[in-house]
Amino acid sequence: MLRINRETDYATAILSLMARQPQERYSAAWLSSKRSLPAPVVSKILKQLVRAEVLVSHRGAKGGYSLARPAEDISIAAVINAIEGPIALTDCIEGGNAACQYSAHCAVSHNWSRINDVFQTALEAVSLKDMSAPLPAEHPSLRALGERVKTAVS
Amino acid sequence: MLRINRETDYATAILSLMARQPQERYSAAWLSSKRSLPAPVVSKILKQLVRAEVLVSHRGAKGGYSLARPAEDISIAAVINAIEGPIALTDCIEGGNAACQYSAHCAVSHNWSRINDVFQTALEAVSLKDMSAPLPAEHPSLRALGERVKTAVS
Repeated sequence: MLRINRETDYATAILSLMARQPQERYSAAWLSSKRSLPAPVVSKILKQLVRAEVLVSHRGAKGGYSLARPAEDISIAAVINAIEGPIALTDCIEGGNAACQYSAHCAVSHNWSRINDVFQTALEAVSLKDMSAPLPAEHPSLRALGERVKTAVS
Repeated sequence: MLRINRETDYATAILSLMARQPQERYSAAWLSSKRSLPAPVVSKILKQLVRAEVLVSHRGAKGGYSLARPAEDISIAAVINAIEGPIALTDCIEGGNAACQYSAHCAVSHNWSRINDVFQTALEAVSLKDMSAPLPAEHPSLRALGERVKTAVS
């Protein structure tokens, strides 16, 4: 199913909170309380984000977690990568032809790969700063995007 | 994980074969053989595609399955819908706020919904006909797409 993991969704919710005061250091307990998410889940997500160098962990009395770089330089693609690995719409995009026993008879894997590129590029262009701001209710340019994608892959 | 179901991948592989001779009627056995996919899997997929009115099933000696409409009028979004339901990147896009117990403290669901719209629109613009043709190796316009998406959602 074309769906992000719940943990990825939670990660963007946590990071959007941190992005409001990006110089601050945040404790797992405070973030957990503010987002009403279970503390063990938040701790696990924070560790994954540190491992992926989206966050930095600071030790000591004034320790905590902070953004590793400005919110506008953290893409949603990077957050997805940190929590659930590479964006790969099909098994063969991640694992190559060896990942699918039917690849020798498949005529569409190359095109799925093109669509994957479009998604990857789109998610690289949306930053944590974009995600943290309330967006206007209507985006007239969205409707036209489909046609541009069509042009790109046909 | 941001990945289509295997069955959706198989469905596009089967449909791309049917789109080459869209007037023909195809048996499940023949499609299964040509794509080297297990017959029960192919049968199940074909039934789902009939239910979603992507395919038509014909009875009788010259029976079989055929495309319900021209390949250029069948979008990849429709195929995804037929096999795995609506495109919904997060639980709350599909089920509303009631689907997530943390929705009251979430600041990003609206923006995920915007990104979902972009994906939906993109997949509506890619037709089965597009998927059935070999695509050129390079798509210079793909790189620029990310910036256009950013403009659309920020």
